[in-house]
Amino acid sequence: MLRVVPLAAGWLLPGGPSVPRFSRARAWPLGHGGLRPWRAGSAEAGRRSVLKTPKGTRDHPPAYTALRERLLAAVVTCFKRHGAAAIDTPVLELRETLMGKYGEEAKLIYELQDQGGELLALRYDLTVPFARYLAMNKITNMKRYHIAKVYRRDNPATTRGRYREFYQCDFDIAGQFDPMIPDAECLKIVHEILSDLQLGDFLIKVNDRRILNGIFAVCGIPESKFVTACCTVDKLDKVPWEEVRGEMVGEKGLSPEAADHIGEYVQLHGEHCGLIERLLQDPKLSQNKLAKEGLGDMKLLFEYLTLFGITGKISFDLSLARGLDYYTGVIFEAVLLQQENEHVEEPVSVGSVAGGGRYDGLVGMFDPKGRKVPCVGVSIGIERIFSILEQRMKASGEKVRTTETQVLVATPHKHLLAARLKLISELWAAGIKAEMLYKKDPKLLKQLQYCEDTGIPLAAIVGEQELTDGVVKLRDVATRVEVDIPREKLVDEIRRRLEP
Amino acid sequence: MLRVVPLAAGWLLPGGPSVPRFSRARAWPLGHGGLRPWRAGSAEAGRRSVLKTPKGTRDHPPAYTALRERLLAAVVTCFKRHGAAAIDTPVLELRETLMGKYGEEAKLIYELQDQGGELLALRYDLTVPFARYLAMNKITNMKRYHIAKVYRRDNPATTRGRYREFYQCDFDIAGQFDPMIPDAECLKIVHEILSDLQLGDFLIKVNDRRILNGIFAVCGIPESKFVTACCTVDKLDKVPWEEVRGEMVGEKGLSPEAADHIGEYVQLHGEHCGLIERLLQDPKLSQNKLAKEGLGDMKLLFEYLTLFGITGKISFDLSLARGLDYYTGVIFEAVLLQQENEHVEEPVSVGSVAGGGRYDGLVGMFDPKGRKVPCVGVSIGIERIFSILEQRMKASGEKVRTTETQVLVATPHKHLLAARLKLISELWAAGIKAEMLYKKDPKLLKQLQYCEDTGIPLAAIVGEQELTDGVVKLRDVATRVEVDIPREKLVDEIRRRLEP
Repeated sequence: MLRVVPLAAGWLLPGGPSVPRFSRARAWPLGHGGLRPWRAGSAEAGRRSVLKTPKGTRDHPPAYTALRERLLAAVVTCFKRHGAAAIDTPVLELRETLMGKYGEEAKLIYELQDQGGELLALRYDLTVPFARYLAMNKITNMKRYHIAKVYRRDNPATTRGRYREFYQCDFDIAGQFDPMIPDAECLKIVHEILSDLQLGDFLIKVNDRRILNGIFAVCGIPESKFVTACCTVDKLDKVPWEEVRGEMVGEKGLSPEAADHIGEYVQLHGEHCGLIERLLQDPKLSQNKLAKEGLGDMKLLFEYLTLFGITGKISFDLSLARGLDYYTGVIFEAVLLQQENEHVEEPVSVGSVAGGGRYDGLVGMFDPKGRKVPCVGVSIGIERIFSILEQRMKASGEKVRTTETQVLVATPHKHLLAARLKLISELWAAGIKAEMLYKKDPKLLKQLQYCEDTGIPLAAIVGEQELTDGVVKLRDVATRVEVDIPREKLVDEIRRRLEP
Repeated sequence: MLRVVPLAAGWLLPGGPSVPRFSRARAWPLGHGGLRPWRAGSAEAGRRSVLKTPKGTRDHPPAYTALRERLLAAVVTCFKRHGAAAIDTPVLELRETLMGKYGEEAKLIYELQDQGGELLALRYDLTVPFARYLAMNKITNMKRYHIAKVYRRDNPATTRGRYREFYQCDFDIAGQFDPMIPDAECLKIVHEILSDLQLGDFLIKVNDRRILNGIFAVCGIPESKFVTACCTVDKLDKVPWEEVRGEMVGEKGLSPEAADHIGEYVQLHGEHCGLIERLLQDPKLSQNKLAKEGLGDMKLLFEYLTLFGITGKISFDLSLARGLDYYTGVIFEAVLLQQENEHVEEPVSVGSVAGGGRYDGLVGMFDPKGRKVPCVGVSIGIERIFSILEQRMKASGEKVRTTETQVLVATPHKHLLAARLKLISELWAAGIKAEMLYKKDPKLLKQLQYCEDTGIPLAAIVGEQELTDGVVKLRDVATRVEVDIPREKLVDEIRRRLEP
C-alpha cells in the first residue's frame, strides 16, 4: 500500500544524527520551537503593535513549508493517480456568489471594504467556487483537484490546527454517471491518503442525507426543519445523545416523542450489511421514498467498497450528518481512532481529518437555467494532519532540511573570490545546486561549518594549488574525506556521489 | 545552459498530432480558446450578474494550471539551485504593516471591511511581508524564495498579463555581506531563468539609487524631491525625454536648467566600463559621496558579472529608476528585446519580465529598535512570461495534457463493472495512474475514445475470456496493438511501456 514515500522517513540530513546543529535562518530544528508560529502577545509584540500576523493566521517558516510541501505532494500524487486535473480560482469572489450557500456559517465570511466597484469577499471553501466555475463555463463533466487557502472568521484553535487562513485539498467529480461509482472512488481516495500518510488507525463514517431526511420525515419532523435537525444530529460525535435530545426539544422545538424516535435511529451504526437490511425492513422507513433510495444506494456503495477491499475501515453511521447545507446524498467523514501518543508529550486532539459528500444541487444554483450538474467530492483536512506530523517530528527530534544545496564552493585562503565565482558558475550551468558564502575571504572552517549547519553533503574547494593543478578538492562533509578531482570531471563526480 | 526542460517541448500528447481532439472538461486545446479566461460582459453574463469572477481576476482552467505549474517549476528549480528555502506568509496583513511602504501606490491596496477586531488588508507584494517576517522573528540572515498571489486594485490590462490578483515569484537574500556578491547572484538568477525559459533575446538594465540621488544632488535638486524625481525618470522607458522633462518642470517644479542637467546624465547608458569610468571622472559627480559609493559598487558588480560570464546581456542604464520607495542601492529590470512574432498573430506587449534591487532600510522600519537587515532581491514577472508562453502555444496549436493518467481500465462487454473495480484497485495499489469510466456498462468504443480525447496512452481491457485465462489485454492507444499479458505481470509491463 505504501506507494508514497512515508512522510516520517528519509528526511534526516545526510549526516544523520551526527550533524550538530542548524543555523536559525536556513534550517529549523523541529524539536526546538523552530516550527512554532510567532505568537502575538509575547514580549516582542508589546513594543510595536504592527509586528504580528493577523489573528488566526501565521507565517510558514522554511521547515514548516518544506514539511507542508511534502505532505501536499503525497496528496497530489493520490489525486493524480485517480486522473484529476488541477484548477485554480481567485481568492476573491463576488459577495453574492458566496451568499446563501453556507447556512448559518455565512457570518464567518471575510468581506472586503467597499472601495468602489464590486462587493467582494474571501472564499470560504473551494466547493462553492468550483460550482460557480462549472456553471460559468457550462462544464458538465470534470474530475478536478484544487489545493488552496480559504478564509473563515472563526475562533481559531491553533494547537488543534484550526486557523482563519488555512489550506483545503479538494478532489471532486462532476457529471451525470451511474450511481455510487464516483462516490466509491472518493472514499477510496480518503482510504489511500490516510494509509499512505501512516497516521495510525482510522475510521471513515458514511451516511446519506436522504436516509437522514427519511428518518426525520417518519419521525414527524416538518421538511422545513430538516436542515436544523441535521445540524443538531451532527453534534453527536462531540456530545452525548441526552444533550442532543435536549437541544432538539429545547432550542429546535421538536416534540420529545419525535426526538426520542430520531434517537433510536441515529444511534445506530456498525456492520453495514446487517444495518442496511434492518433499515430496509423497518416498517416505517421502508415506506419513505427518499430513505429507500438512500438505503439502496448505500447497499450499492458497500458492494463497490468491498471490491476495492476497504470496507474494514468504513462504518455506516446514522449519526453522521455534516454541517453544510449543500449536501444531497452520500456524506462521509474520516476520524483517527487513536492518538499518536508514542512520541508526543501532549496528545493533539485533531477531530476529523477528511470529509465530503454528494452535492447535486449546488451548480444549479449558479446556472442561469438552473441546470444541475451532480457532484461528489472530498476535502482532506490537511492542517489537522499537518499538526499531527509536526508534533510527531518534533517529538522524535528529527530535522527537516529546508534547502537542497548539494555543494558548497569554498576556498582555503584569501584572494580567491574570483575562483569561487567562476567555479560556482560552472556548477550552476551543469544544474548542480551550489552555494558559496557571500564573503570575499571567508575562513575555511566557517565554510565547512555552514555545510554542517545546513546539511550540504559536499564541499568543492579550490586554492592556488588546485588552480595550478587543474583540479578541485572534493570533500565529503560527513566523513571529511577529501579527493582531488580533475576539474573537467568534477560535475560527473558530484552527480555520481549524489546518486540515490 | 539548458538545465531546465525547455517549456515549449515535450508537452505534446504521447500520440502527438495524431490525437484527434480533446474533451472539453479534461483537456483544453490551447489553440481554441481553452485558455481564455471567461469574460464578463458576454451573453452568458447578462442573465445572472453573479456568474463572474471579480474584475481583474480569472479562473485558471486545467490547461492554464498545468502550463503555469511547469513554468513555476522551472523558476523554483533555479531558486533551489541557488540554495534558497521556501517560506509562506498570510495573504492578509494588518493594514498598518502595509501602510507607508509603497508611496503613492498605497491607494491600490485592497482593504478588508471592519468586521470587528483587527483592521486588515490584502498583501500588495511579497517584499514587505518578508521584511515584516524577518523583523518579527529577529532573523538577520536568510536566502528565501516565495511564490504566491498578491493583490492590487490597479486598472487591469489582461491581454498584457496584468491582473488584480497575480502571482509573484520572489528570491531575496537578507544579511550583512561583502558588497555586491549577493547582488550579482540576483542578476545571475534573472539571466538563468530568462535563458532557461527560451523567451528570446533579453536585456537586463542596471542602475543604482545612490547614483541617481547623487545626480539629483549635483543638479541642485533638494533631497525632499529625490523620490518624486525618481518616479518621473522611471517613465523614460515609455515616453521620450522631452515629455519627462516637461513633467519635471511643469508638475514637479524643477527648474528648466536642473531638468536639462539631469537629462544629460540619465540618457546615458551602454558599455559599462567606459560609462562608469566617465562618471567617476565627472568633476561634479565624483565629488558626491553617494554617487561615488554607487559607482564604486557598480564597478565591483560588473567585475563579478564578468566572472559569471553574463555581461553580454546587462546594460548600465542611468534612466532606470524603478517606482517603489524602498530601494536604496542597486536596482535592475529585465526586458525582452524582440517580440516573439513567428507564430503569433497579435504580438503581445509585455513590458518588463523581471525586476528588483537592494532595500537596506525596510526591515529596520519594522524592528522595534530600528535594527537594519540589508536585503537584495528579485521578482520574476511570471504573469507576463505566462502570457507570452500562452500565446506561443496557442499559435503553434500545441496541446497541453492536463492529467497524467497512464492506463484506462476498460471492459469489452456488459456486466463487468466488478472486474474493472478489482483491476483498477490493483493498479492504484501499485502506484499506476489509472481511470475508468463511471458507467456500469460503457461501450468499448467510448472507452477508447476517452483515451484518445484525454491522451491516456494505454488501455487495460478485461472481458470474460481474459478473466478465465488470467490475462489482461493491454492496448497501445496510438498504435492500436493489443497484447495479452498475464495478470500478475501487468504492473511490470505497464511500467516497462511507460519508461521514458
